[in-house]
Parts: sequence; structure tokens; C-alpha cells
Amino acid sequence: MRSLYCGDLNETHLDQQVSVCGWVHRRRDHGGVIFLDLRDRNGIIQVVVDPDTPEAFATADQCRSEYVLQVQGRVRLRPEGTENANMPTGKVELLGKQVTLLNTSETPPFQLDEFANVGEDVRLKYRFVDLRRPEMQEKLRFRSKVTHKIRNYLEEQGFLDIETPILTRATPEGARDYLVPSRTHEGCFFALPQSPQLFKQLLMVAGFDRYYQIAKCFRDEDLRADRQPEFTQIDLEASFVDEEDIMGIAEGMARELFQALKGVDLGQFPRLPYAQAMSRFGSDKPDLRIPLELVDVDDLMAQVDFKVFSGPAKDPKGRVAALKVPQGAHLSRKQIDDYTKFVGIYGAKGLAWIKVNERAKGLEGLQSPIVKFMEAVIEPLLERLDAQDGDIIFFGADQAKIVNEALGALRCKLGEDLNLYTCDWAPLWVVDFPMFEEDKDGRLSALHHPFTAPSCSAQALEAEPAQALSRAYDMVLNGVELGGGSIRIHDQQMQAAVFRILGIDAQEQQEKFGFLLDALKLGAPPHGGLAFGLDRLVMLMTGARSIREVIAFPKTQSAACVLTDAPGEVNNQQLKDLHIRLRAKAQVEG
Amino acid sequence: MRSLYCGDLNETHLDQQVSVCGWVHRRRDHGGVIFLDLRDRNGIIQVVVDPDTPEAFATADQCRSEYVLQVQGRVRLRPEGTENANMPTGKVELLGKQVTLLNTSETPPFQLDEFANVGEDVRLKYRFVDLRRPEMQEKLRFRSKVTHKIRNYLEEQGFLDIETPILTRATPEGARDYLVPSRTHEGCFFALPQSPQLFKQLLMVAGFDRYYQIAKCFRDEDLRADRQPEFTQIDLEASFVDEEDIMGIAEGMARELFQALKGVDLGQFPRLPYAQAMSRFGSDKPDLRIPLELVDVDDLMAQVDFKVFSGPAKDPKGRVAALKVPQGAHLSRKQIDDYTKFVGIYGAKGLAWIKVNERAKGLEGLQSPIVKFMEAVIEPLLERLDAQDGDIIFFGADQAKIVNEALGALRCKLGEDLNLYTCDWAPLWVVDFPMFEEDKDGRLSALHHPFTAPSCSAQALEAEPAQALSRAYDMVLNGVELGGGSIRIHDQQMQAAVFRILGIDAQEQQEKFGFLLDALKLGAPPHGGLAFGLDRLVMLMTGARSIREVIAFPKTQSAACVLTDAPGEVNNQQLKDLHIRLRAKAQVEG
Repeated sequence: MRSLYCGDLNETHLDQQVSVCGWVHRRRDHGGVIFLDLRDRNGIIQVVVDPDTPEAFATADQCRSEYVLQVQGRVRLRPEGTENANMPTGKVELLGKQVTLLNTSETPPFQLDEFANVGEDVRLKYRFVDLRRPEMQEKLRFRSKVTHKIRNYLEEQGFLDIETPILTRATPEGARDYLVPSRTHEGCFFALPQSPQLFKQLLMVAGFDRYYQIAKCFRDEDLRADRQPEFTQIDLEASFVDEEDIMGIAEGMARELFQALKGVDLGQFPRLPYAQAMSRFGSDKPDLRIPLELVDVDDLMAQVDFKVFSGPAKDPKGRVAALKVPQGAHLSRKQIDDYTKFVGIYGAKGLAWIKVNERAKGLEGLQSPIVKFMEAVIEPLLERLDAQDGDIIFFGADQAKIVNEALGALRCKLGEDLNLYTCDWAPLWVVDFPMFEEDKDGRLSALHHPFTAPSCSAQALEAEPAQALSRAYDMVLNGVELGGGSIRIHDQQMQAAVFRILGIDAQEQQEKFGFLLDALKLGAPPHGGLAFGLDRLVMLMTGARSIREVIAFPKTQSAACVLTDAPGEVNNQQLKDLHIRLRAKAQVEG
Repeated sequence: MRSLYCGDLNETHLDQQVSVCGWVHRRRDHGGVIFLDLRDRNGIIQVVVDPDTPEAFATADQCRSEYVLQVQGRVRLRPEGTENANMPTGKVELLGKQVTLLNTSETPPFQLDEFANVGEDVRLKYRFVDLRRPEMQEKLRFRSKVTHKIRNYLEEQGFLDIETPILTRATPEGARDYLVPSRTHEGCFFALPQSPQLFKQLLMVAGFDRYYQIAKCFRDEDLRADRQPEFTQIDLEASFVDEEDIMGIAEGMARELFQALKGVDLGQFPRLPYAQAMSRFGSDKPDLRIPLELVDVDDLMAQVDFKVFSGPAKDPKGRVAALKVPQGAHLSRKQIDDYTKFVGIYGAKGLAWIKVNERAKGLEGLQSPIVKFMEAVIEPLLERLDAQDGDIIFFGADQAKIVNEALGALRCKLGEDLNLYTCDWAPLWVVDFPMFEEDKDGRLSALHHPFTAPSCSAQALEAEPAQALSRAYDMVLNGVELGGGSIRIHDQQMQAAVFRILGIDAQEQQEKFGFLLDALKLGAPPHGGLAFGLDRLVMLMTGARSIREVIAFPKTQSAACVLTDAPGEVNNQQLKDLHIRLRAKAQVEG
């Protein structure tokens, strides 16, 4: 039906008879001649139909936006002065001799080039129209290229593509599972996997040595942030490896992707221990494009007579940190108020600041609501921060967690608002994570997951679990966690020790992870792996603002598909077959 | 940790110091020396550890089956006379200088080379042990190669890999859906897709032009045959195409796969209209390796005075067919009785037969319980069948459906039992399917699915729906339906006509397929596609006896995973969150 794509026509096809198919993007009548911009996935070609070919002309004359056509004709140069340098096909046009109407279209819910005026709900409902936009086409095409490159890279490295089940058992990632009632096993449910974690470990025990999968994963979480109930993970695992092997493979993959698809050399990724990431950037996924750092000033602030600062400074769990913005003193009172509100989101009770107007003038040269409390320490403070005239310094003083989150977020916000970026792409590895984090009641939970190997012995781990570091690593790019992984526990004793520390008793261990413990007893090799978030990776690489833009049929914030109207109601027989019933609405509402 | 795989060692490595990792496959002590067969995914190497290296010797001495080791040492030729020609590594051995115990193993539930003595349930429960068997390794590795080849082939052809949702709306394939209760939409359920059918059609409406996906699909059916609740489909769709385009792409893909991975040239696939397939082979997926055909004898049998034959022969819905097995007269009475039972499974009430002992002798030369009724027609019958001395002829006489199923199945059984295969691989296309099939009450249902385009106009379709043929095509290999597809309806009027014929009224159309009808109104291009069953394809190509052998973690016949013990019970809070409760067991049991 088609000899080539509309978007591929150019001067090399001059005087050729071609056949193209596509959608009427725009139609104009000019001097008794009809101009149709015909669009397909590769681009747009201008079709000219004149009254010399009455049949073609009559068909072209009926055409409206989004009609579907086949056009056969001759490629010719556009008349001088009418070329369009903005279009790859802009030097030529197709003189349509035969125009076949393949389908009509009702008036579309929105014009493709006016999509910005339409709410996202309408665009999602008519996703098949919205996806016709060249930007959307390009994003999904880019995604296809990314997965293709990744597959080739991993297969060259000997990784086998192995599928793991979707109907499976609850996995222990900690988020809420999607459940699937079983018809054949009354009262029982499958869970959709939050990741293939345990299956890929079993594949290592089974001797596959190198596994990968581009795997669908599921989390039934409230979609506060830019998340989706189903998302896609580039999942890999290898045996007889250490951290360097896995990080090398993953880094090589990211480097090759960026080189091939963006023409960008990411270089060697720096590595940052978790403790340093938190202290210097207030985050375990620091955006290193921004040249701002948190500076500890606890020792100085412990001396001031200002409880808001001296309290946290003296508290072992507290922190006082400064964030200097070079040449930021121009920020207005209003802007500073907005940043104060912003850090409030993260629990900060305020946002102290000092503008350095003229440092040489001492206190006189500083503008600040709090500087009066700091007289004794102001010189060493400015010295430590290397403050220059025109700088502004923000402070956070609170529980360390709150200071880190608030100043960490403020750092990113300032970077964006003031466009402080020093480069386009700043990848890094964060390493040396703690094994556990402590909740308010002193209970420990796994910072990654309970199968992560510690970098110490089982004895050391049980003696001081809160101090133990893990063999985990996260790949971070521009402040986004792209992927993470670890060397896993392959020793059954060590796994039992971790479960004990997490308060999972022998019975629960057996119930939940019996098959993993069995596997560890039957010749598990040392192994480790990593998982990348494909949606986020593609989002970053395409400059999309949301992962919804790089997913063909995404769900809304309330986990619904407005296109197909899913989820939907089912009939009573279906529920009966699954041995379930709905809870009475009245009860819930009343 | 490893310089190369155990299975890759050979004479090119002589005198090299290497490091290998793997599992103790077998251990022997011989002449004060320990021999360990060390296994990894690429094969087995013989490791020799002698008492000259006491530490290595002590470690090797502790080793039992399935212990995990790293061995460093020197490659040397095996002493003359001890080479093993059956092993790729059989000319060399590794003199282990350093043996590191990476993990121990309890006694495995079964020895790898004694798997055949173990029930499938045990092998599934310890799947991570069973998968260590070289045959299983090879099958999953082959599967990975298949998907890799397919992806490369389709991407070279311009197909984009686009993911469609798993949490979606009930699809109309007709099997039972797996349902997922929604937490955020009370009383509503997602369905897991039985195929990406509607989404891929929407992608065509969206202008992606060529889509593919290796997609997980789900059916909650009773697993009578060799089926799985979740299975994998190679799914593709293209726009501005006709049957020839899609069949060409799919056939090219199959040919390239077999060429590259099996060294087999499948040649050009013959095409067989559905009606011929049924009449000659009694099946819409005939195994063309078997040189037997059904032959219609209604006209002859209508004349005989034997109601069992003359009744069906005269009934328009009946059929009398003969199946000649050349040189099959040696079949014993017992064998014939078994075949009679066999066709009984398909509803045949008996299995008439004639042995042609000496045709020249006329009736005398025939052996048969029924020949006495056939005197009048015996000569033309033998003539039509070209019967030779030593042949046996079977008969089916019943409703056409029963005759086709019974003799179609018998044909395959005879082919297998008597090893009549004329070739290893016999692919074909079955085409010209009817649009609809009629149930007992004369109600029509779609033979493929309701989005399949008819090969006639909407008027002709509505006038005589039962006569209409569709633009569907099935790829069949060795009697297995490998894939199927069709040109789809892209015209909204035609789609509405098909829905009307199927008895789906306007309201139901809108409720179930409103989004598709909307899409067809907004500029749908002509399009079509196909889906292959990946599991079956790999099963055929690897010679596996069940698709469970080519799936890493399959489910049992009762749709359970005995490895992870899925499905499992969930707690009450989880049910509450999903707005469901279990039906009282007591009620069901009482």
C-alpha cells in the first residue's frame, strides 16, 4: 500500500512515483488547489492536488483533519520561495494523482497542535489521538530504542533473558501488593510481583549465572509522586561476582546508552559513601549538577545563646547545617518567605538566613534576623563557608533527618530556580549504605531489602546491627535514583541473622521465605544484581516531565485508566467463582 | 572470581593458570587423588586435587554433591587413555592448586542425573535444583536466543517495542479473566489481559504503524491440556497492510528463526483453506508431516443398506470419511480396539475398518466386520482410495464435527504410533476461515474474535453471516497452532454490523467497547496483525514434551506454584483494604 513513509520523502525521490499513507494533519485551499499535510510516524509531507485530476481532487476536497488517506503521485520540488526549512521534507511536495480515502474521522476532541489547551484527563481519555503528536511518537520510539540497546548490551555480556511469574506470592519489598483471588484454591490469592527479586536469586541458585529481564512490577501505593501502579524494571543478576562487577556492568550500560542515543559521554561515575551524601547534600540521591553543599556548623552553633540552633547542635541526633548560595543575596523577602514555606513541607520549622552584603564591615555588613545571636561565632562561620559579598547563607537546625530533607530539597529547588546547573548530566554511585534504619521506637528495618549482604561478618552484624554497612549501591543521575542493587546474602546463617535482627521469627521465616532458605541450603553461589527503573530512565533521557509521557497507556493518580474505564464492575457470578463477595457499601459508608 | 566458564575449557588453554567457579557435580577418590566434576552453565570440567597441595586437598575432601567452589589451577592434558570423548572438555583437566569453598549444600532432594525417578511435583518444588540439569539450562537458554532473534528481526522491520498495561479492563477473548480488586475504586476490579488485542489496535489508530511486544497474557481456565495460567505471546500489529504483508513478515520470522537456531530451511509455507483442512485432515491445524488424508465417501455410503453409514451420508450435517493407512493391515485386533477407544474420546461411537489382504480376490480378500454391507460399493470405494494389498482403511460416520475430530485425531495418533512422518518440520498457513461458528441453538459466535475483518462487504455479511469468510490466518507447524491473526475491522460501520450479528446490542457495545468504537470513528487506519505463542514455539523447537519445560517457574495443573506456595492466604486487613471478604466456607461446604 505504501512505498515509503511520508516523513522520509526528500530530493533524492525527485520525479519518482511514490505511494504514501497517513493522516490529514492540515488542509488548505489556495488558488484553486488543495494542499494536504499528510502525516505518518516518520513525519509530514505536503501533498498538492489540483483540479486536473478531478477524481483525486474530489476526494481531497472531502478531506478533514485526521482523515486517513493513501496518496499516489510524483515527487517534485516545491516552487521557489515556498520551501519550508523547518520540515525535513520541506524542499519537496507530492503531486497527488490518485487519492484514496481509507477512513474518515469525526472532528477530533482536540487539534494535535493545540493539545496544551486540553486537560490531561481529556488527553488520556483520547490517548490514541494524543499519541499521534510527534513528541509523543518520538518518546515511545525512543523508549523502544532504549530497551533494544539494553538488551543487546546485556546479551553481549552473556545475560540470559528469563521470564519470571506475574502470578506469584507476596514479595517482601514492603509496599502493598496487588492481589488476585484464585478460583481453584478457595480463599487464596496470588500477588503481583513488586519485583522479581526472589525469583532472580533462585535463578542464580539454579546456575543460570547471568540473568536479565525487562520486567513489569506492581505496587498498590497511593500515587503521591510521579508513580504508576505498574512500572517497568530492567532487572539483572549475576553469580560469582562482587560489587565491582555489577557496578561495572551497569555503569557500562548507562554509558553506552547515553553515548549511542544522546551522543553524551557520561565518563567515569564518581562514588559517594551514603554518609557523605547525606552530610554534603542532605540526600542519598544528590543532584551533582548543582554546585551547592551543606556544611556542618554544629560545633560553632553549640556555643551560641540561641536555643533553636544550640539545641540541635548539642543533640546527638540533631544537626545544624548551612547552605551557602553564592551571589544569592539578591533574593527578595518574598522569595525567602516562599523558600521558608517550601522547607516547611519537609518538617522544618523555619529557615534562618544571612545575606552577606559587605563582609569587610563585620556584623554591620550582614543582613539577617538571627545574626544578633551569633556574634561570637560569626567570623569562623563565614570563614568556614568562604562567604563572599553578595552571597546568602541558609540554615537548617533540627533533627538531622529533617535538616537533611529540608536543606537537601532546598538545594535542588535553588538549583532549578536560579539555574545553577554546571552540566547537563551528573551521574554517580552512592555506596556504603547502612544495613538498617531505625524507626522512632528503635526498631530496625532493612534500608534496601532483607536479602542484601552486609559488608561485615554475621557476628559483627548481630553485635552492632545499627552500625553495619551493606554491600548495596544506587545509581543516581541528576538527583534521580535510576537504579539500585546489592550483593545478596548467599549464606543461610547470615540470612537467618538478618531475619532475627529484623524481628522475623523462625516460623515467619519459614512461612514467608521457606523456599529461599531451602535454596540457600542447597548450594547457593555468591551473587548480586541491580534493577533500573526503565520509565524514569526514559523520562530523564527524553526530558519528559512525567513518567506518564513515556508510557503508552498510563494510569491516573487514582490508579484508573480513563481510556478503557478500568477498573470496572464485575458480575456476581465472577465473584462467586473467586469465592469472594463485596463488603457491603452501606456498612462502610455508615 | 572466574577467568572463564568450566564448560569452555579445552586444549587451547593448556598450561594456563585459570580460575573457575561452579557446583560439584560428582566426586570420586582414586589412587589417593580427588576428582571433582565441576559444573557451571556452560558445562563440566574435571578437577584433580592431589595431596601435594594439602590445603586444597583438605577442602576438596570435604566436598559433597552441589557444593559451590572456586578452583584455581593449571590446565593440563588428561593422561592418555582417560580422555572422555563425550565431553567437550574431555581432553583436558584442571589441576586444582587452590580450592575455595564458596558454599556448602545439604543433600539435594534428588541427584541431577536421576531426575527421571522423581515426581514432577518434587522437581517443581525444588525447581532451582531441577533447573541445574544441563537439558533444562539448554531449554531456557534457547528460549532467550529465540526472543533475541525475534526482537532483532522485528526491529529490523521497523516494529517498535511498546508495552501495554497488565492492569486493565476485561478483554473479549472469551476465556475467564483473572481479576484484581481495586483499593482506590471500591467494588471495582482490574482484569489481567488475555491478550493486548485492543491496545495494539489503539496503537495503530495512534499512528505507531508497526508495533510488537513479547507480552504476558493470562487466562483463568481449567488447565486440561498443556496450558498455563500465564503465557507469553509474540504480539505484532501493523498499519496499511493486507494479509500478504503480515503473513510475509511472520513467515519470514519463522524461517529466519529455524535457519539461525536449528539450521533448518522451512521453505515457502503452503496455504490451505480452512474448508480443505477440515475435509482432508479433519483439523484446522493439520500435521502435514503425516501422509494420511481423510477421503469423503458420502456419495458411496448413501447407497448402502447400513444405517450407521447411510444415515450420516445422507444428512447434510453428517459425514462419512475414510482414512487409509498404507501397509497398516498388520495392526492387531488389540491395537484396533485401542484405536476404537481412542476415537471414542472424540465422541465417535465406533471405528469401522477394512483390511485389504488380497484385493484381487474381491470380497474374499478383504477382512472386515462391515464389508458385508458394502458389496455394492466396494469396488468404487477401493478404487477411490487406491487401496493396495496390505492396507487398512478406517471409517468415520457421524455428525461432520465428530468425524473430523475423531479421524483427525486418529490420523495424528497413527502418524506417531507407526512413525509415518515424512519430514521433521511441516509448516503451513490455514486461511479462509469462516467468520462465525454456529452453536447448537443456531447462535453465532466469532471463530477468531469480533475484531476480525470479513472478506466481504458489510451488506453481504449481514445477509448471510454463516457463509462469510474472514481475513484471518493461522500458522501451523507439525499439527500445533503456532500463531494466528487477521486483518482487523477499521470501519466503524462494519464493526457495528459484526456486533449486531453476535447479538451485542448498542448499549453493551458502548459499555464494553466504547473506546474502540470511538477510536474507529477518529481516523483508524487499515491494520492487521498476528500473535505467536512463544511457549509452544520454544517447546516445539527444543523438542520438549510440555510447555512447563520451557518456562522457568511454571504452575501446576491446578494453577499453583508449589515452589513459592502461591496462591496463599492473606490477612483480613488486606481484604478490607480491597473492599472484599471471603465467602463463608461453611456455606459452600454445607
